[in-house]
Amino acid sequence: MSVTLAYLADYLDAELHGPADREVAGLGTLASAGGDRLSFLANPRYRGQLETTGAGAVLLRADQVEHCPTAALVVDDPYMAYARVSHVFDTAPAPDAGVHPAALVAPSAKVPASASIGPNVVIEADVVLGEGVVVGANTVIGARTELGDGCHIWPNVTIYHGVTIGPRTIIHAHCVVGADGFGFAPGPGGWTKIAQVGGVRIGADVEIGAGTTIDRGAIDDTVIGNGVILDNQIQVAHNVVIGDFTAIAGKVGIAGSSRIGSQCMIGGAVGISGHLEICDRVQVLGMSLVSRSITEPGTYGSALPVDKQDRYRRNVARFRHLDELHRRVRKLERGAGD
Amino acid sequence: MSVTLAYLADYLDAELHGPADREVAGLGTLASAGGDRLSFLANPRYRGQLETTGAGAVLLRADQVEHCPTAALVVDDPYMAYARVSHVFDTAPAPDAGVHPAALVAPSAKVPASASIGPNVVIEADVVLGEGVVVGANTVIGARTELGDGCHIWPNVTIYHGVTIGPRTIIHAHCVVGADGFGFAPGPGGWTKIAQVGGVRIGADVEIGAGTTIDRGAIDDTVIGNGVILDNQIQVAHNVVIGDFTAIAGKVGIAGSSRIGSQCMIGGAVGISGHLEICDRVQVLGMSLVSRSITEPGTYGSALPVDKQDRYRRNVARFRHLDELHRRVRKLERGAGD
Amino acid sequence: MSVTLAYLADYLDAELHGPADREVAGLGTLASAGGDRLSFLANPRYRGQLETTGAGAVLLRADQVEHCPTAALVVDDPYMAYARVSHVFDTAPAPDAGVHPAALVAPSAKVPASASIGPNVVIEADVVLGEGVVVGANTVIGARTELGDGCHIWPNVTIYHGVTIGPRTIIHAHCVVGADGFGFAPGPGGWTKIAQVGGVRIGADVEIGAGTTIDRGAIDDTVIGNGVILDNQIQVAHNVVIGDFTAIAGKVGIAGSSRIGSQCMIGGAVGISGHLEICDRVQVLGMSLVSRSITEPGTYGSALPVDKQDRYRRNVARFRHLDELHRRVRKLERGAGD
Repeated sequence: MSVTLAYLADYLDAELHGPADREVAGLGTLASAGGDRLSFLANPRYRGQLETTGAGAVLLRADQVEHCPTAALVVDDPYMAYARVSHVFDTAPAPDAGVHPAALVAPSAKVPASASIGPNVVIEADVVLGEGVVVGANTVIGARTELGDGCHIWPNVTIYHGVTIGPRTIIHAHCVVGADGFGFAPGPGGWTKIAQVGGVRIGADVEIGAGTTIDRGAIDDTVIGNGVILDNQIQVAHNVVIGDFTAIAGKVGIAGSSRIGSQCMIGGAVGISGHLEICDRVQVLGMSLVSRSITEPGTYGSALPVDKQDRYRRNVARFRHLDELHRRVRKLERGAGD
Repeated sequence: MSVTLAYLADYLDAELHGPADREVAGLGTLASAGGDRLSFLANPRYRGQLETTGAGAVLLRADQVEHCPTAALVVDDPYMAYARVSHVFDTAPAPDAGVHPAALVAPSAKVPASASIGPNVVIEADVVLGEGVVVGANTVIGARTELGDGCHIWPNVTIYHGVTIGPRTIIHAHCVVGADGFGFAPGPGGWTKIAQVGGVRIGADVEIGAGTTIDRGAIDDTVIGNGVILDNQIQVAHNVVIGDFTAIAGKVGIAGSSRIGSQCMIGGAVGISGHLEICDRVQVLGMSLVSRSITEPGTYGSALPVDKQDRYRRNVARFRHLDELHRRVRKLERGAGD
Repeated sequence: MSVTLAYLADYLDAELHGPADREVAGLGTLASAGGDRLSFLANPRYRGQLETTGAGAVLLRADQVEHCPTAALVVDDPYMAYARVSHVFDTAPAPDAGVHPAALVAPSAKVPASASIGPNVVIEADVVLGEGVVVGANTVIGARTELGDGCHIWPNVTIYHGVTIGPRTIIHAHCVVGADGFGFAPGPGGWTKIAQVGGVRIGADVEIGAGTTIDRGAIDDTVIGNGVILDNQIQVAHNVVIGDFTAIAGKVGIAGSSRIGSQCMIGGAVGISGHLEICDRVQVLGMSLVSRSITEPGTYGSALPVDKQDRYRRNVARFRHLDELHRRVRKLERGAGD
């Protein structure tokens, strides 16, 4: 698939510096793109790469045009322009509408003709799918679950019963939505399971990465807001609430009943303890532990970065005696004050 | 589905303060329950919510009856009573017995008439299922695996060959039981794979959360005791042994051949190194690293909690010089002692 | 299945001390093996177990023969010999060649007669499989993906479109290869998804553990080298590059565009930030955070190990004031220097 620069200039409302009929057939990085590729310069740090790029055209800001050795498409926000235009060159197969003969759809389920249901998909009783929903092969959707218009569920996903998902939400392979939360009462004879009778409510325009698990609520629902983006292998425990437009990187774990505000950015592998609140616009750096509520917007961190093994081991050994060290310093100070 | 308070009082052996014929149709939290809901007060911290609750009835201890504005069901342990009664209101569909026509069951497999085998389930040769076993859609059970009576396997689970699972164990979607452990011999030409010829033995009344993986043993078996509860996305490496009634929160990783005692509680995202032993009744706080054996019951932790970015960065930079700081303090002490 | 010691001596090019016609039927550890089992002594630490073993034969080095109470197979590298011989005793079912009638193979896909395609497998358009490829039940392989000769894909794996995998690579259950990377452009109206138009290229002789996810590239490909071994539940983000023979333990997360050298060993649950480089032959200890590039081979670590709760809490509280402590020590030093 090829498009002309004239088409792209029109699509992006960009100012074209270069031949309107030049065609590009895909995206490329500044460093590796050939003459049939479109590239972009978003971070001025890469301007050196712009000057030597072999790309057929580059998305960039007006102040970089003079450094561009090839056709330029001038926009205010090259990264956003790249995001928008990337879909023109997407290589993902577009599934046809219709129910595959090897899919199993309960008679009581509502599946519009515009939906695409892949082979070996299982859709249980009273499921309701919106217009244009795509359900990938071997995915299972439990009873009474509802998906809004335009949702795209990739293969091998499991959505349990009683889950509600807003329009245009994308769920990648091997996600599990609505499995039981981790609720048990301790007793002398061991753990007694607590039936998890809440559901999961997911908003519109959410994206959920591969292998992420979102548990159903114990009594009330687990809630993911609109426009939330979740990376791979995130664990969202029962009754967690995540506010609109919050972005969470891979491998984050959020324990039960914690509430995360909107427009937060949670780094990779962060752990968030249960029953706490994080206010809006909080950023947490990767691998940090949030064990108390955060009430002030800003950036927070806790993880130690690597050091060479010998120094690491010496410092760790000293950490065990840090409190003692404080006391020794205080004693010295008292002595010095005498 | 509605039940009367009289029914619940009888079911729980509770003392009823209120109208025996009042009906409740589900569970609710003290803060949000309406008049047709049953709630509970387990933690006295929420007594304020009890005083204003709209619930139709509340499970509570005798000493809280006077604060209860609605019907009360008096029990010794309200949390355990809630756990027991939660199953009355469970909304999970109850699958019918029988083998779905789209399931594939090997002729040599033993599947009793009371079992429920979902669509697209694959049951390989010589598998033995107990009475009343439920196997959800698209699950695969490998050759010679045995499941005890009343096990519930949710959809899209993969159990490899030669796994033994005790009665009433629940395995949630996307668990993998019995994949190869991570065993390789280093050589000049790279890594040589070691066939993992051990199996996995899982006890009775175990629950395993979504996306958890339990590897088969290298030679001997990987072993999960009775009554163990495992949350989501836990990794249990080959030849790990977990004692009875131990509870492990989400995202914990346990490296090969480590042995965890019984009645332990391991917090979320804890890492446990290989070839070590943790004795009974150990609690480990979330995100800690256990890199040595623990021989004494008690609570252990290691993770640093978040701080604001600027202070975090300053302290982290100092951590690199902690050993040096100790030496400087010692020098000062020697000077002071002169 | 039983084999004679003569057979094993020949297979391993080992020197046999003991009866050539003795048969062993499987592997056992020194501590637990019975007389029909083959064991091995690789780590001299276990020599005490050798002296009392009940094994029918033991793989060991020449210098241990005198301590061996049973038949000995003398080799230079007993661990490697154990690795090689383990496959003789493997209990995994060997699937028959052919396409299961319940598999769905697109007419344009190339599936050789030597391949084994399990039930409910979905193979999309233009997929190309090599000779002897095994695809386990309920696995989905997306359009245009290519698998080299002898690959073994276990059940319930999802490989997206446009992925290339070299010969003899093993992928365990519930891996996801080629899902979208986590790429979004921020804007005033929320996040705009960036189509991930790159692919994934995986080398030869790679093994990928259960539940691991490897995202497709944003523009260029995500690349896994030859002979790389990945344990369970690893997250490999878009455009990561992993060098040949690198070994990565369970639960590691690697953020976007980072490059890891060859022959590295990354411990369990390590986090590697995005856009950095790790040179060849780097070892990282478990649960460490790598937040900067590493340019020198060696061993690196950062995680604090557990301590008893009370001391842990005291030290953590002091860590918050570590920078302040440094300043106080400097002040004392200045005072002492006066």
